[in-house]
Order: sequence, then C-alpha cells, then structure tokens
Amino acid sequence: MKTAITPTRAENFSDWYQNLIVAADLAENAPVRGCMTIKPYGWAIWELMRDEMDKRIKACGVQNANFPLLIPIDFFNKEAEHVAGFAKECAVVTHHRLKMIDGKLQPDPDSKLTEPYIIRPTSETIIGEAMSRWVKSYRDLPLKLNQWVNVMRWEMRPRMFLRTSEFNWQEGHNVFATHEEANADAKKMHKLYGDYMREVLAIPSIMGEKTPEERFAGADHTYTLEHITQDGKALQAGTSHDLGQHFSKSFGIQYLGTDGKLQYAWTTSWGTSTRMMGSLFMIHSDDDGLILPPAIAPYQIVIIPISRDENEDELNKFAENLAGQLREQNIRVLVDTSDMRAPDKMWKWIKRGVPLRVEIGAKEMDAKTATITRRDLGKDSKKTISDKELLDTAKDILNQIQHDMLAAVEERNKKMITEVSSLDELDKALRSGKIGFFKIKYELTKSEDFEKMMDAYKISRRCLDEKDPSYVYVAKSY
Amino acid sequence: MKTAITPTRAENFSDWYQNLIVAADLAENAPVRGCMTIKPYGWAIWELMRDEMDKRIKACGVQNANFPLLIPIDFFNKEAEHVAGFAKECAVVTHHRLKMIDGKLQPDPDSKLTEPYIIRPTSETIIGEAMSRWVKSYRDLPLKLNQWVNVMRWEMRPRMFLRTSEFNWQEGHNVFATHEEANADAKKMHKLYGDYMREVLAIPSIMGEKTPEERFAGADHTYTLEHITQDGKALQAGTSHDLGQHFSKSFGIQYLGTDGKLQYAWTTSWGTSTRMMGSLFMIHSDDDGLILPPAIAPYQIVIIPISRDENEDELNKFAENLAGQLREQNIRVLVDTSDMRAPDKMWKWIKRGVPLRVEIGAKEMDAKTATITRRDLGKDSKKTISDKELLDTAKDILNQIQHDMLAAVEERNKKMITEVSSLDELDKALRSGKIGFFKIKYELTKSEDFEKMMDAYKISRRCLDEKDPSYVYVAKSY
Repeated sequence: MKTAITPTRAENFSDWYQNLIVAADLAENAPVRGCMTIKPYGWAIWELMRDEMDKRIKACGVQNANFPLLIPIDFFNKEAEHVAGFAKECAVVTHHRLKMIDGKLQPDPDSKLTEPYIIRPTSETIIGEAMSRWVKSYRDLPLKLNQWVNVMRWEMRPRMFLRTSEFNWQEGHNVFATHEEANADAKKMHKLYGDYMREVLAIPSIMGEKTPEERFAGADHTYTLEHITQDGKALQAGTSHDLGQHFSKSFGIQYLGTDGKLQYAWTTSWGTSTRMMGSLFMIHSDDDGLILPPAIAPYQIVIIPISRDENEDELNKFAENLAGQLREQNIRVLVDTSDMRAPDKMWKWIKRGVPLRVEIGAKEMDAKTATITRRDLGKDSKKTISDKELLDTAKDILNQIQHDMLAAVEERNKKMITEVSSLDELDKALRSGKIGFFKIKYELTKSEDFEKMMDAYKISRRCLDEKDPSYVYVAKSY
Repeated sequence: MKTAITPTRAENFSDWYQNLIVAADLAENAPVRGCMTIKPYGWAIWELMRDEMDKRIKACGVQNANFPLLIPIDFFNKEAEHVAGFAKECAVVTHHRLKMIDGKLQPDPDSKLTEPYIIRPTSETIIGEAMSRWVKSYRDLPLKLNQWVNVMRWEMRPRMFLRTSEFNWQEGHNVFATHEEANADAKKMHKLYGDYMREVLAIPSIMGEKTPEERFAGADHTYTLEHITQDGKALQAGTSHDLGQHFSKSFGIQYLGTDGKLQYAWTTSWGTSTRMMGSLFMIHSDDDGLILPPAIAPYQIVIIPISRDENEDELNKFAENLAGQLREQNIRVLVDTSDMRAPDKMWKWIKRGVPLRVEIGAKEMDAKTATITRRDLGKDSKKTISDKELLDTAKDILNQIQHDMLAAVEERNKKMITEVSSLDELDKALRSGKIGFFKIKYELTKSEDFEKMMDAYKISRRCLDEKDPSYVYVAKSY
C-alpha cells in the first residue's frame, strides 16, 4: 500500500522523521549551522503548546520576566560544574562591528570586546546575579520567575526539533528559604510537566530522578521526563532541577531570615522546549504523516467541500455555515476552499495531522449530512452522519480522539519496557535487537562492564524508577 | 508638595524617566553592555501589549513563524544599503567554544568559525532567503509572515526601553506580486499601528512618510509613527517599509506570473518593539509615577483593605468577594493583602500606575461602600460609592479612563506643534527654547543652513505631513 511518507517508519525511522517534518510543512533546516526555521504550521502548534504551558506555570504563582541574551564569560565561570557542562558548545560574541577588509565584510578588529559574551545556553548565571540583588529578606521568598526565550548550544549532530543549536524554551528559576521547599518545588514542576504532557500532548512519561552521572551541570537533584519513541528510544522531554546552594553560593543569593541571620537561599530551575514538538511528532505520527492531539492542533477540524464548477458556491456556503456553528463551540475549524483537487486537499490535511476530517459533496449537502474520518483511526473510521449530529458530537469526538491517542501510546509503551535481572540478560536482549527501555538494578550499572555496554550499544541511564529508586531505566536515546 | 518620583519632570526629565522605571519596578540595567532586564511587572505589561498586537496582525492574514537568531555575514552583505545601515552596530559571533587559557576562560582559538555570524539586527536578509525558496508562483502570493523575537544592535548611548542593545519586537515580512499591493500593504500596517496605539496605548501619533534622508536602509518608502513626549521630543514608535524589489532582487524572490513569466516579487517589512513601552511610560506618567491605560494594565483595579488586627480577616473576605465579582466581568483585579502599611500600599500602586484604586476600611465595609480614586485624575477624583455601584460601573469607569487618557495627550499635543514659514523662524523658536514639533516646508530643509541647524539643535526630520507632503515635521528626538 502506498504511504504518504517514504521511507516508512519500518524501513528507515530516521529518514521517515525528516520527511514527515517536510511533508507536514513544520520546519526546515536553516542556512545557519545546526539551526532550523520553524514554518507557520509548526509555529502555530508551538503557540498552542506554549500558551497552555504558560497558563499552568502562572497558576503556580510564577511570574514571567525577560533577561539578556548575552552572558558575560565571567558570570559563566562562577559555577565550576556549570562551566564544564556548557563551555564546549556555546556561541561566543567577540566583536561589535563589521568592516569591509580586502573586499570582504569581516569583524572589525578595532571593535574587539575586552570581555567576550556567550549567547545563553541556559540562564542560571545571569538570573542568579539578578536574584542576588532582588532577594534581601525572607519576605522576598519564594521568588518564582520564568522566561520564554531562545537559547543556543552549538550542536555537532543537529536534528530538527530534537537537537538544534538554537532552540526556544521556557526556563523557570525559583528561590526558596529552605532546601525542603526547593526540592518540593522541583518535584512540583516535574509533576506539572508530567500532567501537561499526558493531558495536552497525549504522551505518558517515564518520570524519575536522574542518576548522579546524568545530572544537570550544577544540580543536586535532576528530575526528568523520558518519552518512549516508536522506535523504542528515550527522548528527554523536560527536566526540573533542585540546584541546592550551588548558584546561591556562586552568586551570593542571600536573605535575612526571621531569626535576623543572613543565609544562602536554595534555588531550582526547570525547563521544557521545542524539543517536546519532536517528541510529539515522533510518538504520534504514522506512515501517512502527522497525527495531532486536538488540544494543540491549529485546526481541530478541516472541512473539505468536494465541489464541481456548477455547485461550488453553494457547497462552500454550506461548509462555511457548518464551520461557523462549530467555531461557536470554540472549535478551531478550517474550510479548505483552495483550488487544489479534492484528493490532494485530503492528503494535505492527512499529512498535517488534522484530528477530524469532514468531507462534503453534493450528496451530503442535499441530505444535510457530512462524511467524517478520524485521523488517528484512519479510513476504517469513515462514516456519514447528519450535520446535526456532527454539531452535537464534534466536541465529544475531539475529546475521544485526545483520550484514545494517549491510550494507544500507553498500550504501545507496555511492550517497550523490559525488566532484566542481570547485565548478562541486558546484553542478550540488546544483542538480539530488542528495542525499548530496560529496567535494571541501579547497582548493576555501577560497573566497568556496564560502561562498556554503554559504548557498545549506545545506551545510557535515563532515570531511576520513581516507585523503587533502586532500579534504573536504561535505553538508547535521542 | 512631595512627589513620589524625584527629580520631577520639570526638574530633570531624563532622570525622572530613569527613576520612574525603578519606582514602578519595570526594568533595570543588566550587567551586559547596553542591555536591560525587564522585570515581572514590566513584562506583564508587554505580554498584554503583545497579545493585542498579535491578534490584530493575525486578523490581517499574517502567520507567525520563527527564523534563526544568527545571520551569515554573507547574507547581510547582499543588500548594499542594508549593510551600510547595520554593519556599524552589530554583535559578531566568531567562536563556538570556550577554553581555559592562562587561568582565564576565553574563546578557544581552535573553534574559530570560518564564516562568522551576526546576531540579527533585523531579519530581511534571512527571511528573504527563505522566501526565495518558498515563493514559486503567483499562487503562493501574497505570503505574510511575522515573528516575535529578540534582536540586537550595539548601542553606544543606551536608555531603558528607548534604546537598548537587545530588544524584543515583532517584525512582519510580506511578499506581493505587484508594487501597488506592496505599497498598499505597507500603508495598511502603518494604519494598523496607528489604530493600535490610539485605541490600546491611548497615544495619538504623528503619521507620515519618512523623507529619503531618513528611510530604512533598503526601503523605497518608510512610513513612521512619531509620538510627542511630555518634554516635546519625537519618539519613533513603529515603522512600515515598502522595500520595493531591493530584497527580492538581492535574494532572488521570484514568482511565475499568470502570464507564465518569471518575475521579481515586491516585499514589505513592518515592526514595533518594546520601545513602545518607553513611549507609553514617557507620555502618560506624572511626578507620582506610572499611569497605565486600562487596556494594557496588568491590574486594572487594585483593592486595598485598610484593616486593623481585629477585623483583618473579615475585611479581606469582603475585598476578595468584591474582587471575585469584578473578575467575573473580566476585569483584572488585585487585592493587596500583603503586610505593608496601607499608605505604603497606596503609594506602591500609584507608582505602578494601576488605573483605579479601591480602598476599603471598616467604615466602607459596614456601609457596603468603597472609596475609589482614578490614577489619571488623582485625589480630586476620590469618592465613596456603594459596592453595587462599583460593580455596575467599573467597566464604564475603566473605559472612561482609557478615553480620557487619550484625550489628555491629544490636548497637550496641540500645543506641541508649531508651524514655521522659514528657517529663520525655526531658528528663533529653537533659540528661545521652544519645545515640540515644527512643521515647515520640506523644500526649506534641503539646504546647508538646515544641515547646520540639525547639528546645532540636534533636530531631525521626523516625517512628511500625511495631508500635505510638501511639509515636514522637524523635532529633537529620542
């Protein structure tokens, strides 16, 4: 059977993913090393994702702000682990003027900065410096800040949405009086992310703490959400860090306690990015293209009038009328009246993953019906219903799609987790080509043998099991 | 009389402005040359401004997208006027790694880029390159794109919100088949900006075309909105450019016409930025602080319970109940139950410009009344009304404030525009210390004498008169 995307997932998952992005018109590689351009359809999805996330973050009493893009090298240098983690992959600004030299536009040597800047790879340092001035007494705590910005990490092996040199994200930075509060906050944002991904993106997460080996550079505890892709790899979709006093000590974030004594505060940071979109696309799509959960679909319903010259106006009017009534229910609807052929329109919106497709021809118009097809279930779900029934049940159908998409991934994930009781068993499984997550005693991974397997099979520790942290999940990863 | 902001506007307008920003907790200078940190209260204002602008832009059929932060120098070099306009003030990225050298973290020489990048000062070039691939036939036109991003221009004399090295903005980039459509579009977005500033920011604009001397680098026509500040200077608040075929020819944006012939397209670009916030603050505020138009005030109403220990709970409950009913009308309300003294709270919200202040003490609670004060009119507007009347009229009061704020600026602006019939008359007026805009025949400014006056008085041509383009407005500017 011909599929819209070639190669198929089974044939070559990696190429399928790249072609999916092109076919759904989401993004393209930019003429800037490792960077991408997010096209209007992709950005519309991100805006919906961002707005819903922003609402949930604000409901926690977090305030948005905006900190500078550039970070003085000197700041970056204040937290040793942090430097080690990011110095190898950052964009460095060294000049502030261009000049024509030998017929070529080049950095003007006279504009060389005495202190270079780096483009933020993350903002713990510059926000830490601000916090050291903004926090004075226990009355100023907790202070909860977030920003939606672009960051940059020089990527040697970029891949659209998953790993690009520049990406968009939200980074939250909170300060507390005690370690208990900070740690509870890191866990709270971790849970917020988990709920969001489940309820909005229809993606269940493997949630847990990173092992010390895998922690964020400068954190005491890192809580992560790991998604399982269709090809059985792990995709880190969001992290939340209990930073202890690393940054408060490096930047002097101190507060006067109720006891009148000056003490160091405790900070957290937590972030999710456009990487979530990569996860969304990889997890829900099929060989015909994208499948979007209704919650973040720019168009939840597309209506395609299948007209002939003689009935085009009448049919479009019928379709627009239906769309108007659906929009009154706050459903995002597009009526595709472009001059493409109907089958081309159909495929266009299949590839772009619109949750519900409504086709209306002369027959439907005369009978006051509509032929509907769910994107997630495909043509087996095709049926003709009365226009009244469509109006009455559209919301329910969309909710059902949202629900079923989550359930489908949950079902698939069950087969993607294998418990193994020894390194030997793990080795056998990996050698036999078994994909997915492997649950194993964490102790067993603290060995040279495991280190060797990490290299050989390109696996890594994803996170400790939330219920029993003596176990760790191990997988190949994006 | 003591004022909340010192010095006052009359004493030192420039220092007043800086102190206003601090007093209202809007922003602060960042530890990065020429950059600022926008604090939560300032950012909340920007989010409201941005969301309303975004809605209006999308209503024009424009789609948001996201293009890279970095621009290859080579791209930048393709449009000669554009280079000349921006090469002198840009941040240049030359390395992609840091290294510890002589005990100091420095750009790693081994990571030097063969082709440096500049941080976008504006995105005509990188978007032009994308358009050259996205536009193929007349069917792809018009193509209307916008992005909300940060840009960077190295500023030697930075001033918060008005002129900072990094700033946030929206930049729209549209492509059309004909020059007529492109020029009409530039004018349409110009009008959209004018309406927005009038209806949302309560600021009337002097609108018109820039003279050739003042055009955007690479434009055929630049339409500008100039605001008149309280100290009589011009503040350029938004521009819209008819770029002719400058960028379509530099980047090869061509389309196959209905006649089957390949031809160059016509482009526009149009932008507004956080600079509008500087205008907003400078134009509406007084010696007691900010005055915000209700349309973009994070809190439109603040309720201050003036309690004693014995009635605190009861009073807060009364206030919260009132707030709840106001929120049901979609009014943004804050009940300030913090443990500051009531007069301190009052001043805090005066300085932050909340449009309507509601004070409730034991007396008010018992009588089921509230004492209200309009921020724009000050204590003369203070009156006690029943809580029922407050609930019934709150929306109207806020609308009235929005209306009156615009009217007040319109009234003030009338005195700020002086028509002069000769350079001599202009010279006399400026020498006598007269402030504001001067309307003069454009022909008269095309002279050496005027050039000299530009230097001597630091004045510039702001724009041609929209009704009679043989006249130009001249003023000192921010």
